[in-house]
Amino acid sequence: MLTVNEYIQSNKDRFLEELFALLRFPSISADSKYKDDILKTANFVAEKLKEAGANNVEVCPTAGNPIVYGEKIVDPSLPTVLVYGHYDVQPADPLELWDTPPFEPTIRNGKIYARGAADDKGQFYMHIKAFEYMTKNNALSCNVKFMIEGEEEVGSSNLGAFVKANKERLKNDVIVISDTSMISLEQPSLETGLRGLSYVEVEVTGPNRDLHSGVYGGAIANPATILAKLIASLHDENNHIAIPGFYDDVVELSQKEREALNKAPFDIEAYKTDLGVDEVWGGKGYTTIERTGIRPTLEVNGLWGGYIGEGAKTVLPSKAYAKISMRLVPNQNSEKITQLFKTHFEGIAPPYVKVKVTPHHGGEPVVTPTDSIAYLAAEKALEEAFNKKPIPTRGGGSIPIVALFEKELHVKTVLLGFGLDSDNLHSPNEKYDIANYLKGIETIPLFFKYYAELSK
Amino acid sequence: MLTVNEYIQSNKDRFLEELFALLRFPSISADSKYKDDILKTANFVAEKLKEAGANNVEVCPTAGNPIVYGEKIVDPSLPTVLVYGHYDVQPADPLELWDTPPFEPTIRNGKIYARGAADDKGQFYMHIKAFEYMTKNNALSCNVKFMIEGEEEVGSSNLGAFVKANKERLKNDVIVISDTSMISLEQPSLETGLRGLSYVEVEVTGPNRDLHSGVYGGAIANPATILAKLIASLHDENNHIAIPGFYDDVVELSQKEREALNKAPFDIEAYKTDLGVDEVWGGKGYTTIERTGIRPTLEVNGLWGGYIGEGAKTVLPSKAYAKISMRLVPNQNSEKITQLFKTHFEGIAPPYVKVKVTPHHGGEPVVTPTDSIAYLAAEKALEEAFNKKPIPTRGGGSIPIVALFEKELHVKTVLLGFGLDSDNLHSPNEKYDIANYLKGIETIPLFFKYYAELSK
Repeated sequence: MLTVNEYIQSNKDRFLEELFALLRFPSISADSKYKDDILKTANFVAEKLKEAGANNVEVCPTAGNPIVYGEKIVDPSLPTVLVYGHYDVQPADPLELWDTPPFEPTIRNGKIYARGAADDKGQFYMHIKAFEYMTKNNALSCNVKFMIEGEEEVGSSNLGAFVKANKERLKNDVIVISDTSMISLEQPSLETGLRGLSYVEVEVTGPNRDLHSGVYGGAIANPATILAKLIASLHDENNHIAIPGFYDDVVELSQKEREALNKAPFDIEAYKTDLGVDEVWGGKGYTTIERTGIRPTLEVNGLWGGYIGEGAKTVLPSKAYAKISMRLVPNQNSEKITQLFKTHFEGIAPPYVKVKVTPHHGGEPVVTPTDSIAYLAAEKALEEAFNKKPIPTRGGGSIPIVALFEKELHVKTVLLGFGLDSDNLHSPNEKYDIANYLKGIETIPLFFKYYAELSK
Repeated sequence: MLTVNEYIQSNKDRFLEELFALLRFPSISADSKYKDDILKTANFVAEKLKEAGANNVEVCPTAGNPIVYGEKIVDPSLPTVLVYGHYDVQPADPLELWDTPPFEPTIRNGKIYARGAADDKGQFYMHIKAFEYMTKNNALSCNVKFMIEGEEEVGSSNLGAFVKANKERLKNDVIVISDTSMISLEQPSLETGLRGLSYVEVEVTGPNRDLHSGVYGGAIANPATILAKLIASLHDENNHIAIPGFYDDVVELSQKEREALNKAPFDIEAYKTDLGVDEVWGGKGYTTIERTGIRPTLEVNGLWGGYIGEGAKTVLPSKAYAKISMRLVPNQNSEKITQLFKTHFEGIAPPYVKVKVTPHHGGEPVVTPTDSIAYLAAEKALEEAFNKKPIPTRGGGSIPIVALFEKELHVKTVLLGFGLDSDNLHSPNEKYDIANYLKGIETIPLFFKYYAELSK
């Protein structure tokens, strides 16, 4: 029997090769032309689960992309851990900003560069490799179930129905997700909350066709100009969101909680330098840590209208569009916020144009308790692997499905993330450090061990 | 010897076939991938000039797209007319909104649908066919020179140098351009002014790379949001342009001139119905005719940033862009306005972002006199062909090169346009009525005749 570190040492190259094979699939869920690659990725994941020792492995069809399931029940009296992850990735554009192609993983300075390296292929694959170690070395101290989906980046629209239809099969004591980040290898941390999400697309229509801007300009409302005015009105002069009722349900933290949160190591100068900005921005009265953790946001994710090609075209466009997402905090509700946005945005549209708001997807904010067995087990595992106690943080991202798990399966989630904020998630040159990948594989069996011990 | 109407009757089908062949070239000057089609179009135009009877035909190279020159000097003592036109066209996108492909001309209800049908292939080709009639029927009463360029839609950047270098060759008494519109076949009109143009592209840069909107949203300025705020600030609550000094040089018309201008037939309800809008928009205190004729404008021609593909991507973009053009009226100056815009726009940028304004191209506004021999000859020609006296109008479009001709060649221009405002210039489904095409071929020899007579 090998220790996990011995096992990692003797299998390191293969662990990387397998992850590279997984990263080579362009499993972009937002664009239907990658449907075939999505299916190939799901089959690859299923194959690897089987090889690692999982039983009842199945590529489960859904109305959208399939969900890969697998399990290993060693003893029904032991606690059961459900590992959730996603094999789909964000689109890779703008492609020209990648230093190496997004689907040809490349190692530079100990980092794996590829779309999905950290979000989430590199992170969920750690669980399959940790599981392989535990099964092959008789070290599996809990039952384990895997549920790896293919629509996380587009709102997990078919996972809800799958979870509802498979409650018995998915039954578990705790869900573990590695799809978030930690502060650094020197300072491990554990996320204790996630923001919810409300994502909408807006369409502003002016004239019924594109017009010559010389013939009609100045006399017909330009939907691009009107869209700009509407977007500009969504934040007030203090950069707070100016939609009536938007903050009504926000749980304000106590002064003491805010002070605790702001104790996390954070170097504002290094942050600005890393991002190349002269000044940070955000809601007046809050720190950067608070703005990204405990405050809701509204961001334009995409904006387009008129002629966007090379050169000049003197057109007054018929339509202009924006993709807008809002991150939500406890106790905001995504459906309520989406409706608030829609009513407000359509309501402020001037009579010269028609405005349509289409909801894309949403998810609810969650806070995970820091006094649960699962949290304590994760804390102990990280402390042993990193030789330093992890600190709790509040993440700015969203994994909408966590709230669904709580509601449908009545279990809490542990956010055992090994990424870094600098991993360029959703950006060109996404990366994942090899050290973090291997440290994750080392930490996961410790979590299983302590979770089983504390559950006794 | 045939009359022009007899000649048109016996050659109508060929006149259409030749125009169709010209329209089939996708001679889009804004996109360098059509360079080859541009050259083919220039050669086609040169060939047709030769066939029609022109001498010294030459496809003259420039630093950009070539200029086609040709002439027929019947008698040095006769006046010389220079015909200017352009064989390049606007981009055809959005392609999906065309009912038939933009470069496969199609006749429906007596109208030719194709990119460039009215702007300007169908209009300059009338001159070649009218010239053919006059040479073949011994009816050429003036010397004629043709200068057909290939960069009008992208700012005629190389025409200035060509004109300066060829002053002797281009020497003429009047320039005729058919690249504007008239009110209708029932009510002919003559444009007596053109607006100038200042076209810029703006780039707003926030963080140095696209970011995950969950991790960084709310804490770093979003360039798409900032761009929206900057664009929103460019018009005040009365829809006037809020750039300090913008209106300083505008020549205000007298009350009497404004009243005369507003006497042109204009049905606001039909206008709104045609464009599919519930209300018109524009600078408070001015009518729609004034807003498109005698007032300067500022329009967003294109806007883009972030993720604009299918589905959803939660990105905080690094950059956002806009193409913005301003139409200028006498006595505004395009260089001065471009500089005003640049200084203002870069000046109002908040410290969270970097803003860059790049000038694209410009042109000066012009007013053509209504008491010149050329105007009177055009008026008589139109009256005879249409059996109704044309009324003077002020066009909203820009042909920047007219001001250059005045400056370099010291001659005035007659804007003998046969298009209609409803021709969908720069839009999907651009069209040109066959009736207008043939009426133009009929009118042009009359203009030559009266111009020669009045010049005596």
